[in-house]
Amino acid sequence: MNQENLSKSTSLWIPRPYTCEEEKRIQSKLNEKLDPELVAYRPGPGHTRVAYIEGRQVISLANEIFGFNGWSSNVKEITIDFVNEVQGGRIQVGVSVILRVTLKDGTYREDIGYGSGEFPKKADAFQKAKKEAMTDALKRTLRSFGELLGNCIYDKRYLQEIANKQRKH
Amino acid sequence: MNQENLSKSTSLWIPRPYTCEEEKRIQSKLNEKLDPELVAYRPGPGHTRVAYIEGRQVISLANEIFGFNGWSSNVKEITIDFVNEVQGGRIQVGVSVILRVTLKDGTYREDIGYGSGEFPKKADAFQKAKKEAMTDALKRTLRSFGELLGNCIYDKRYLQEIANKQRKH
Amino acid sequence: MNQENLSKSTSLWIPRPYTCEEEKRIQSKLNEKLDPELVAYRPGPGHTRVAYIEGRQVISLANEIFGFNGWSSNVKEITIDFVNEVQGGRIQVGVSVILRVTLKDGTYREDIGYGSGEFPKKADAFQKAKKEAMTDALKRTLRSFGELLGNCIYDKRYLQEIANKQRKH
Amino acid sequence: MNQENLSKSTSLWIPRPYTCEEEKRIQSKLNEKLDPELVAYRPGPGHTRVAYIEGRQVISLANEIFGFNGWSSNVKEITIDFVNEVQGGRIQVGVSVILRVTLKDGTYREDIGYGSGEFPKKADAFQKAKKEAMTDALKRTLRSFGELLGNCIYDKRYLQEIANKQRKH
Amino acid sequence: MNQENLSKSTSLWIPRPYTCEEEKRIQSKLNEKLDPELVAYRPGPGHTRVAYIEGRQVISLANEIFGFNGWSSNVKEITIDFVNEVQGGRIQVGVSVILRVTLKDGTYREDIGYGSGEFPKKADAFQKAKKEAMTDALKRTLRSFGELLGNCIYDKRYLQEIANKQRKH
Amino acid sequence: MNQENLSKSTSLWIPRPYTCEEEKRIQSKLNEKLDPELVAYRPGPGHTRVAYIEGRQVISLANEIFGFNGWSSNVKEITIDFVNEVQGGRIQVGVSVILRVTLKDGTYREDIGYGSGEFPKKADAFQKAKKEAMTDALKRTLRSFGELLGNCIYDKRYLQEIANKQRKH
Amino acid sequence: MNQENLSKSTSLWIPRPYTCEEEKRIQSKLNEKLDPELVAYRPGPGHTRVAYIEGRQVISLANEIFGFNGWSSNVKEITIDFVNEVQGGRIQVGVSVILRVTLKDGTYREDIGYGSGEFPKKADAFQKAKKEAMTDALKRTLRSFGELLGNCIYDKRYLQEIANKQRKH
Amino acid sequence: MNQENLSKSTSLWIPRPYTCEEEKRIQSKLNEKLDPELVAYRPGPGHTRVAYIEGRQVISLANEIFGFNGWSSNVKEITIDFVNEVQGGRIQVGVSVILRVTLKDGTYREDIGYGSGEFPKKADAFQKAKKEAMTDALKRTLRSFGELLGNCIYDKRYLQEIANKQRKH
Amino acid sequence: MNQENLSKSTSLWIPRPYTCEEEKRIQSKLNEKLDPELVAYRPGPGHTRVAYIEGRQVISLANEIFGFNGWSSNVKEITIDFVNEVQGGRIQVGVSVILRVTLKDGTYREDIGYGSGEFPKKADAFQKAKKEAMTDALKRTLRSFGELLGNCIYDKRYLQEIANKQRKH
Amino acid sequence: MNQENLSKSTSLWIPRPYTCEEEKRIQSKLNEKLDPELVAYRPGPGHTRVAYIEGRQVISLANEIFGFNGWSSNVKEITIDFVNEVQGGRIQVGVSVILRVTLKDGTYREDIGYGSGEFPKKADAFQKAKKEAMTDALKRTLRSFGELLGNCIYDKRYLQEIANKQRKH
Amino acid sequence: MNQENLSKSTSLWIPRPYTCEEEKRIQSKLNEKLDPELVAYRPGPGHTRVAYIEGRQVISLANEIFGFNGWSSNVKEITIDFVNEVQGGRIQVGVSVILRVTLKDGTYREDIGYGSGEFPKKADAFQKAKKEAMTDALKRTLRSFGELLGNCIYDKRYLQEIANKQRKH
Repeated sequence: MNQENLSKSTSLWIPRPYTCEEEKRIQSKLNEKLDPELVAYRPGPGHTRVAYIEGRQVISLANEIFGFNGWSSNVKEITIDFVNEVQGGRIQVGVSVILRVTLKDGTYREDIGYGSGEFPKKADAFQKAKKEAMTDALKRTLRSFGELLGNCIYDKRYLQEIANKQRKH
Repeated sequence: MNQENLSKSTSLWIPRPYTCEEEKRIQSKLNEKLDPELVAYRPGPGHTRVAYIEGRQVISLANEIFGFNGWSSNVKEITIDFVNEVQGGRIQVGVSVILRVTLKDGTYREDIGYGSGEFPKKADAFQKAKKEAMTDALKRTLRSFGELLGNCIYDKRYLQEIANKQRKH
Repeated sequence: MNQENLSKSTSLWIPRPYTCEEEKRIQSKLNEKLDPELVAYRPGPGHTRVAYIEGRQVISLANEIFGFNGWSSNVKEITIDFVNEVQGGRIQVGVSVILRVTLKDGTYREDIGYGSGEFPKKADAFQKAKKEAMTDALKRTLRSFGELLGNCIYDKRYLQEIANKQRKH
Repeated sequence: MNQENLSKSTSLWIPRPYTCEEEKRIQSKLNEKLDPELVAYRPGPGHTRVAYIEGRQVISLANEIFGFNGWSSNVKEITIDFVNEVQGGRIQVGVSVILRVTLKDGTYREDIGYGSGEFPKKADAFQKAKKEAMTDALKRTLRSFGELLGNCIYDKRYLQEIANKQRKH
Repeated sequence: MNQENLSKSTSLWIPRPYTCEEEKRIQSKLNEKLDPELVAYRPGPGHTRVAYIEGRQVISLANEIFGFNGWSSNVKEITIDFVNEVQGGRIQVGVSVILRVTLKDGTYREDIGYGSGEFPKKADAFQKAKKEAMTDALKRTLRSFGELLGNCIYDKRYLQEIANKQRKH
Repeated sequence: MNQENLSKSTSLWIPRPYTCEEEKRIQSKLNEKLDPELVAYRPGPGHTRVAYIEGRQVISLANEIFGFNGWSSNVKEITIDFVNEVQGGRIQVGVSVILRVTLKDGTYREDIGYGSGEFPKKADAFQKAKKEAMTDALKRTLRSFGELLGNCIYDKRYLQEIANKQRKH
Repeated sequence: MNQENLSKSTSLWIPRPYTCEEEKRIQSKLNEKLDPELVAYRPGPGHTRVAYIEGRQVISLANEIFGFNGWSSNVKEITIDFVNEVQGGRIQVGVSVILRVTLKDGTYREDIGYGSGEFPKKADAFQKAKKEAMTDALKRTLRSFGELLGNCIYDKRYLQEIANKQRKH
Repeated sequence: MNQENLSKSTSLWIPRPYTCEEEKRIQSKLNEKLDPELVAYRPGPGHTRVAYIEGRQVISLANEIFGFNGWSSNVKEITIDFVNEVQGGRIQVGVSVILRVTLKDGTYREDIGYGSGEFPKKADAFQKAKKEAMTDALKRTLRSFGELLGNCIYDKRYLQEIANKQRKH
Repeated sequence: MNQENLSKSTSLWIPRPYTCEEEKRIQSKLNEKLDPELVAYRPGPGHTRVAYIEGRQVISLANEIFGFNGWSSNVKEITIDFVNEVQGGRIQVGVSVILRVTLKDGTYREDIGYGSGEFPKKADAFQKAKKEAMTDALKRTLRSFGELLGNCIYDKRYLQEIANKQRKH
Repeated sequence: MNQENLSKSTSLWIPRPYTCEEEKRIQSKLNEKLDPELVAYRPGPGHTRVAYIEGRQVISLANEIFGFNGWSSNVKEITIDFVNEVQGGRIQVGVSVILRVTLKDGTYREDIGYGSGEFPKKADAFQKAKKEAMTDALKRTLRSFGELLGNCIYDKRYLQEIANKQRKH
Repeated sequence: MNQENLSKSTSLWIPRPYTCEEEKRIQSKLNEKLDPELVAYRPGPGHTRVAYIEGRQVISLANEIFGFNGWSSNVKEITIDFVNEVQGGRIQVGVSVILRVTLKDGTYREDIGYGSGEFPKKADAFQKAKKEAMTDALKRTLRSFGELLGNCIYDKRYLQEIANKQRKH
């Protein structure tokens, strides 16, 4: 015989449809390209550089486009792909996160983010890998809503254009 | 005796039917062939080349055809098929993803995507394989909605046609 | 004591009944035989040839008959039946997929598809087997809706007829 | 502590009752015997022959009697009863499938089908066994709706009659 | 963390109550005894013979009494009680099936059926045992609705009567 | 990550309350004692005899008292208590079944039935034990509704009375 | 990936409240003591005798007080506490059953019953233990509804009174 | 693939609120102390005696105060804490039961009861321990509703008073 | 294949909101301090004494403040932290219980109680530990509703005051 | 086959929204700082002292601010992090508790509390650790509602201020 | 057979939509930058310093912006990533927490927090790691609602500005 005590606390989330104006305003906003000032660069393989946006910028943009209460985020899965001890006792951790972003009217997107850490202290490796994966997932998921949320970063022509502009200055 | 505490947060997604005009507009849009400029090529086996569309293009097209809030995506399953250490300590990872894309009116399609990675660092191999599988799944799932979302890429006549055009220029 | 946090996102799919005209139009369309041009052939055992339709054609036909938002697909089960390493280090993979196709009015069919792959690289073997099984399942499931979606391919008389026609030309 | 993310996509199927005329038309149709031309034969034990209908015919008949959207099918269980390697490296596979067929008004039948395969290649053995079981299950399940869907095939008098007719010709 | 994707397809079955006339007609029909022509015999222990009805006959009778859409069947449990290899390499399989038959108005009965098979080939043994159990379960479950569906077969007086009649002819 | 596909087919059973007349008629019927002709006897321990009713009689009585669609049966649990091989290779099987019988108005009873079998062949032992347990459970469950359904069989005075009557004849 | 097919048959039981008269009639009936003729005795430890009611009597009383459709019973748990082989190869089995009895208006009681058996044959030991436990549970559960259903059996004064009466006769 | 057949029988219990008069009558009744005649005593540690009420008395009191259909009981958990074989082959069993008692208006209490048994025969030890635990749980749970249902038994002053009264007589 | 039989009995508990007067009366009652006569003392570490209230008093107070049907209790979890055999064969058991107390209007509190037992007999150790934990949990949970239900016992000033008063007498 | 008996007792908790006045009154109350008299101190690392509030004070404050029926508490998870036996046979136990506090209008907070115990007797160690963790969790969870419930304790300026005041006296 | 007793206590949380004014007020508040006085610093790698906000400040800000009953928090997952014993017997613990913060209108965000502890005593290490992770998670989750809740801390320009200001003073 088995007695189970279930304390169930249920939170409801009910979609609130966009008005036509909201829908148009947001769509046209999302079709815009990123302000070149928001594009950052890190060194890539060879002497290339890789363009990216910072996590805090994407959050600011999402709050600006959808409103602070216009989008919700939900960690669907966090997976520790590996934990290794490498030479010198350093710890390597690789983490992937699947995130869902849901808009006010119920539309959602899901994508995966990745993070890794290598540190002498386990806590540092876990912390960096997990937080990096979370932020990466947020960035990849939001970008599928449109150019302004980062999809344009993958467009070589756009990158060329802003590179040309920068050289001119 | 077993006490379970269940914190349940429920998000609803309710279909919004298309109007007749929307339905027609989208159907006729989807029957169009891809603008040849959006077709990319990578080297295939032998001296052939394989036609494909970039992930960011498919996202742009889907946002253009269905609207930023006209489609939702859901990772149904992510499977690590294998992790191998090969000669030279390189790590091989193979990942498959099953994705569902749901339109505004509730219509859905599911398909599978594949990604693999081989790198000296585990994190790189996992990251590439997982993200590649995700993008591949999105592309394969969206293409079943019509020619413009990529079904025409599998049509040899269409490929021949645009190849002929290109040669003419 | 066990605390569970359940984030439940619920997507509804509600059937939309056909009008009488739609029902008749689709039924009579489905009773048609395949345009011989859509029948492809691959070599079978002995000096025979096996007739089949390409996956992209079946998708096009389904979109034409039911509309882009008139059918939905759902991967019910994907099973890896075996993974073997054979002589020369090649990898053999066998995969079966059970798929459900649901029409706009809720009618559904389920069937099984099969795919296999044998390659030196595991990723290639998994990828081919899984995608082939998916496409095969889609083709077998759709065909049970009528002649035009592929049931006629199993009719020896029909194959004979179109073979005769081809010979005449 | 255990976090579960449940993405639930719910598809409803709601019965649509028959009108009196539909009910009568279908019942009287189902009471008919099979057109002898649809009965096929395969060699049985001894010098006997076993009568059967082809899968594609049963599908055509079901679509004719109930309509393309008048019946739905659902694979309830697929079981691999055994996988053996026999002499000469051939692979034997035995599979059973339980299928449910549901009519437009919610009436349903369930039955079991069997398939087996013996081939040098595993993929061939699995593929044949699984697809054969699926088709066999569909045939056995549909036949319980009436004579025209195959129940008459088990009637020795009917078989005698059509055999006599054939001999007369 | 655990992400579950649940694709739930729900089929409803709603009872349709009998009219008074239907109820009376069916009850009086079920109180009838079986037409002696439908009773078959097989050899029993000693020089006795055991009376039975064929599966196809019971299906025909159920369709006649309740209508093709007046009863539904549901395999509740299929159990392989044993698989043995006996002398000479023959395979013995014993299977039991629990079946539910539900009438149009929601009344249901459940009973068990048994099947066994002994063959040189495993597939034959499984196939015979499973299908025999299914048919046996259908016969036992239907008979509890009344005399005409087979309950009279267990009545020694009835068997005596029809035996006497037969001897007279 | 875990994808589950749930195909749920739901059958409802809704109670239909008795009218006052029905209730009285059935109660007074159930208070009657069994017609002595329906009581059978088998040899018991010592030179005693044990009174019982046959399964088919109880089914007939239940159909007569409640109507063919006035009661439903449901196998709640079937347990194989033991399987033994005894001297001479005979197989002993003991099975118990818990059954629920539900009346038209929702009233239900549950009880247990027992069956055993000892045969040289496993299939015979399982078959007899399982079917005997099923029938025994049906008889024990139905008897708790009243005297006429078998409760009087446990009444020594009643048995004495009918024995006295029989001796008089 | 995991496909589950759930065939759910739901039976509802809805309480039917008592009228005031029913409630009073039943309460006053339950306050009565048992007719001494219904009290049976079996030898207890020492030269004592233990009073009890037979199972069939309790069933008759419950049907008389509540009506055949005024109470329902439900086996909640059946536990085999032990199975031992003792000297001489006899088998000892001990079983406990938890039963719920629900009245027409939804009031319920649960209690435990015990049964044991010791026989040379396993089947006899299981059968006696299980059925005895079931009957014992029914008796203990029903008695808590009042004196007439057996609670008075535990009252030494009542037993004394009826013993005195018997001695007088 | 996994097929589950769920036969769900649902019994509802809906609270029936007390009228003001009922509430007052029951509260004032429950505030009364136990009639000293209902207090029994058993020898305690040292030369003390421990006061208690018999199970049958508590049942009678609950039926008197709340009515036969004014309270329901539910065994929530039954745990066998230990089974030991002690010297002389005697068996010791310790059992605890958690019980819920629910009043007509839905108010409930839960408490634990304990039972133990030590006998040469296992069945006797299990039976005594389980039934004793059940009765103890019922007594402890009911007493929390008020003085008359046994809470006063724990009040030393009350015990002193009734002891004084008894001495006076 | 898996058949599950679910007998679900559902008891509802629906909150009954307090009137303003009730709420005020109870709040002001709960703000009172305990009558010093209800405070008991047991020896604590050193020559201190620890103040406490008896379980039966807390039950009486709760019934007085909230009414017999104004509060419900529910054992959420019972955990056996350890069972040890110590020198001399004595058995030590430590048990913790988590209890929920729910008021008439749905407000609830949960807290933990502890009990331990050390006895030569296992049954005594388990019984004392379990019942002590249950009573302790009830006391701790109720006290959080206010001063009168025991929160004041933790107030050193209050204890000082009543100690001073006692010394004065 | 698997029979499950589910006795489900469901307690509902429905939020009662605050009036505007209540909301303002509570917010302004919560913005107040703690009366310095309620701040207690314990020795911290070095010669520092750590400020805290007693559990009974926080309970009193919560009852004062929200009302006895204005907040509910729920133990979500209790985890025993470790149990160690240290030198001298002393037992060390570390326990963490996650608690949810829900206000009358449904707003909730969750936080973690910690408790540890080291004693010669296991029961003492478990008891102290578990109860300390429970009280700590309650304090940490309540404090997040505002300054008066303890958030100000973490404010160094506030602590400085009240220290200065105390020195002045 | 399996009896489960489920005591389900359900707490509902229903979203309360913002008025337009509330929405605007909160959005404009969230767009503000943090008061430089609320920014704290800790030493970072090298001679840098890392800016952060204290947990109690974030709680105060959230209460100020959303109101004490305008946001709810829910611990979704707490994971102990590692427990190590390092040289000198010190214990290292690393913990991550996933937290959800839900606003009054149902909008939610989830993020991860990290905590670690290294102490001679296990309890200290667990306590610090768990509480630190909880607070870190709360801070990271809240910051995604806007600049004022901490997103600006990640903005190098803002940090530069306030650093410049501080130098000026």
